Amino acid sequence: MLLECGLTLTDRSRREHMPIETITWTGEKVRLIDQTLLPAEERHLELGSVEEIWEAIKMLRVRGAPAIGVAAALGLCAGIRGSRATSWAEFEPELKRAAGYLASARPTAVNLSWALERMVRLAETVRDQPVAAIKERLLAEATAMIEEDHRICRAMGEHGAALLTDGQGVLTHCNTGGLATAGLGTALNVVFTAHRQGKRVHVFADETRPLLQGARLTAWECLREGVPCTLICDSMAAVVMRQGKVKSVLVGADRIAANGDTANKIGTYMLAVLAKEHGIGFYVVAPLSTIDRAIASGDEIPIEERGAEEIIRGFGRQTAPSGVQVFNPAFDVTPHRLIAGIVTERGVAGPPYTESLRAMFEESAMRPHRPVKRG
Amino acid sequence: MLLECGLTLTDRSRREHMPIETITWTGEKVRLIDQTLLPAEERHLELGSVEEIWEAIKMLRVRGAPAIGVAAALGLCAGIRGSRATSWAEFEPELKRAAGYLASARPTAVNLSWALERMVRLAETVRDQPVAAIKERLLAEATAMIEEDHRICRAMGEHGAALLTDGQGVLTHCNTGGLATAGLGTALNVVFTAHRQGKRVHVFADETRPLLQGARLTAWECLREGVPCTLICDSMAAVVMRQGKVKSVLVGADRIAANGDTANKIGTYMLAVLAKEHGIGFYVVAPLSTIDRAIASGDEIPIEERGAEEIIRGFGRQTAPSGVQVFNPAFDVTPHRLIAGIVTERGVAGPPYTESLRAMFEESAMRPHRPVKRG
Repeated sequence: MLLECGLTLTDRSRREHMPIETITWTGEKVRLIDQTLLPAEERHLELGSVEEIWEAIKMLRVRGAPAIGVAAALGLCAGIRGSRATSWAEFEPELKRAAGYLASARPTAVNLSWALERMVRLAETVRDQPVAAIKERLLAEATAMIEEDHRICRAMGEHGAALLTDGQGVLTHCNTGGLATAGLGTALNVVFTAHRQGKRVHVFADETRPLLQGARLTAWECLREGVPCTLICDSMAAVVMRQGKVKSVLVGADRIAANGDTANKIGTYMLAVLAKEHGIGFYVVAPLSTIDRAIASGDEIPIEERGAEEIIRGFGRQTAPSGVQVFNPAFDVTPHRLIAGIVTERGVAGPPYTESLRAMFEESAMRPHRPVKRG
Repeated sequence: MLLECGLTLTDRSRREHMPIETITWTGEKVRLIDQTLLPAEERHLELGSVEEIWEAIKMLRVRGAPAIGVAAALGLCAGIRGSRATSWAEFEPELKRAAGYLASARPTAVNLSWALERMVRLAETVRDQPVAAIKERLLAEATAMIEEDHRICRAMGEHGAALLTDGQGVLTHCNTGGLATAGLGTALNVVFTAHRQGKRVHVFADETRPLLQGARLTAWECLREGVPCTLICDSMAAVVMRQGKVKSVLVGADRIAANGDTANKIGTYMLAVLAKEHGIGFYVVAPLSTIDRAIASGDEIPIEERGAEEIIRGFGRQTAPSGVQVFNPAFDVTPHRLIAGIVTERGVAGPPYTESLRAMFEESAMRPHRPVKRG
């Protein structure tokens, strides 16, 4: 029934809207939409120091694995812009200190350290040039990441959309749209791509406690895009599956181990177990930069634990007694055995992932924009 | 790790505290603690009309299947107290209209109609007496329900506590403590009983979106009782299970079909699937009055859907864009195949439930306080 009624606001002309300006470069500073204020307010921040960027990543003003990678790379440029170093010997420790500091903002998403290490490696390759030229080269690389992210998102969208059928419901978690990347999004852009192809799709968006990225951001992006969307609490996903309202679950990722184990927003593992119980396909959509080939399995992925306040005082007033103990892991790990496929910019990898993901990197190595791996 | 650290506030002397005064009779009115204000404020309401009681049940100022049954029975007494009827012929339609109106407040919990029908049936058995005497008899029955509820809760607590072992974690959902009954509680009182027996137990309380009964009420009751409690978001239950932090899941029920299918707070079905995946025992704790033998399976249980506001503007500020479509079922149905046992005041029923639950009613029929069944 819900699948039929859709949104009365659906407006096909909206499909041609401008992409969300999640992250841009002003010429001097990093410009970000403050995602903690959405959907009530669309306010942009202009941040010119590594401290400001660190705070924005830490406080989730910018979030989503691909987005924080690009934000950190640009933030590094903003931070070193005013450096008075006149030689590589002076510049290198400044650069590495700033990169290390930015990488410390959040531990789970590998894209953050991936992007920063890519920047540092690049600087090393041009270390013989004047500092001004190194800075220029770094800025070109960081701004290129935005364009690259658009291309990657478009490719993931095309590969993933082929998995969706006309008239189906898709369950998603957290936010994986344009707000989660510097481009168009990961999992949510798969749905949007199918929608643009003319497939009738309906998003069931988990609100995603504690920080409600599904309610605040995914619902907002769906309305903006004109894609029918029904908001549910995380605990309702099982019922939506049991009632046959969704045929696929699509989620993003913060880090994928070499064997396909996937760290993503807390609640993702629950969805994977529920999808298995209901015979529903569970797919991860993420760029190759989210795959951490240095770790064999999800057991090695550090899981960020966040403060109690997010749970006990999340909605404007206190909703649990003071003094209660709280467990607030920001992510969980879904074992590869529960994942039907991993959609990247190179296609859809299936199990066994150790082989299929490696093959994607080997193909990728022959292309120009090879991701520089850390470690 | 969490299991060890517990609450610093644990104070054994608190264990002898007074029970929560969830529902009492003032002599003229029904006195309720307004559960929508907890934990910030402990305010009692005194309600003297069926309209006021209806509103209190509808708005969840009093909630929990056993509690709303008792509240409605007392509310019926308050409502008919001022009746000017001088004969059964005049009194009967007033009584039945008031009972029917109160029963309409919420559709899922069977205890509501069970208690009201019990009152009407009782009145019918004394219809030959003067109206004043009928009113007196009804009030005696309703106030007796409070005492009866205490005895039933105590018995469920004893039967259930035998299932728990020293040092274990227990996951629970919504609120099933003293606030959910006129007595000591259902599932949560099982944990409290084990705690009073000297078993070290640790509650993991799902916050229970959208209305946060776990965060607001269960955490509050655990702190009050001195039982170690860790609050989590509903989406974290899977991780808590996977990490081995809990050995049992205990939940209450709003209606149990003859075959054991159980309607309970939305999110319960999810927990049952997750418990199965992790090899964890999933138990329902509910009095016989929650069992609706008139329906063969959970397919026949009406599921209340509540308004969008609870999800998009839950606790002080709007957390989703206006205009988004919302699906807000207040309950879900857990199929009997996922339930390891149903704890009632008569003991622990195991599968197959059609037989084990019937046997409990047959035993119950030989006891004085036989529940009057509707239909």
